[in-house]
Amino acid sequence: MTSAPVREPRQHRSRVTRARLLDTAVDVLAELGWLGGTVTVVAERAGVSRGAVQHHFPTREDLFTAAIDHIAGDLVARTRLDGARIPPGPAHTEAVVEALAAMFRGTLYRAALNLWTAAVNDPVLRARVIPLDLRLTAAIYDMAVELLDADVSLPGVSAAVEATLDVARGLGISALVIDYDERRRAVVRQWAASLDHVLAGNGAP
Amino acid sequence: MTSAPVREPRQHRSRVTRARLLDTAVDVLAELGWLGGTVTVVAERAGVSRGAVQHHFPTREDLFTAAIDHIAGDLVARTRLDGARIPPGPAHTEAVVEALAAMFRGTLYRAALNLWTAAVNDPVLRARVIPLDLRLTAAIYDMAVELLDADVSLPGVSAAVEATLDVARGLGISALVIDYDERRRAVVRQWAASLDHVLAGNGAP
Repeated sequence: MTSAPVREPRQHRSRVTRARLLDTAVDVLAELGWLGGTVTVVAERAGVSRGAVQHHFPTREDLFTAAIDHIAGDLVARTRLDGARIPPGPAHTEAVVEALAAMFRGTLYRAALNLWTAAVNDPVLRARVIPLDLRLTAAIYDMAVELLDADVSLPGVSAAVEATLDVARGLGISALVIDYDERRRAVVRQWAASLDHVLAGNGAP
Repeated sequence: MTSAPVREPRQHRSRVTRARLLDTAVDVLAELGWLGGTVTVVAERAGVSRGAVQHHFPTREDLFTAAIDHIAGDLVARTRLDGARIPPGPAHTEAVVEALAAMFRGTLYRAALNLWTAAVNDPVLRARVIPLDLRLTAAIYDMAVELLDADVSLPGVSAAVEATLDVARGLGISALVIDYDERRRAVVRQWAASLDHVLAGNGAP
């Protein structure tokens, strides 16, 4: 009983350390890639000993896949909450597509790209990235269906939601070195119009 | 005059070496990323001395941007030729979208992704990637307009062509570690139907 007040702060410190490691791992992966992103670099930047990192994440694969999983999970949850507040009306779809596109920009997306491209040639990493990919892809798809209020029993709707996410991923690639806001807005506007047409039941079977 | 027969083979050898270096650089960049893809590794794998590489490409930036530029240029030219042979008819748009999507798969795309993500945090590399990005993006857009026989004076057509290329890029990302053929085909089919609708003059203004 008397150990409880001591354990609580220690558990709290441990959670704080873990959260800092996950944030730092994403930053390092985005900046240095898989080969440059060693556990040592993450430990140094997070101000944690290498041993402490390994206590939380025994392998480099554990650290970086957990980082993407956790930070992407947070982003999906936040996008779902923010997206649910988009008012209904004619501009709803466009605003949802913008919100989905925003997920595939910035540090987290670059970190994920670096992990995914490295996984292609690294069987150990690939075995870890595949379930992560499946889980994240499914979570993002479900969220998109919900936010778009999409009836996936209608012809072409499911494929159009998938296409929407591919557009969002592609826009993120297009904006990697030149973030051309006007171009993105034009693409989102045009696609939202086409998507509305499909969502209304006019999709190809 | 007498030196001509000697110079010819030497120039030929030099061109062969250059071509081999460009191919090898793309492979190395795809596999090891920007940080792992050193000039030394490319020289070793191509069976060329480090000095010979530097004779052709004075800096690492020269080597890798030239490699993407050259190999991507070839791919655009080949896709344009193959795409021009797709027969007209109701399945034409879908076949063109498939051909465009095929550009964003495989080794070259992974190499380009590694170069682009590295460029975000590297000002020297970024200054080299920006003009390359602009040039390749413009060439791919022009080719897509041509192959789709798109009248960009119609409402939304230009944005729909841009969106098509973003879908193609996004499909390439989706397929990095799990190449799910059925999913891609469904997205391409649905996308082509929406695109046909816009190409026929029903786009949002």
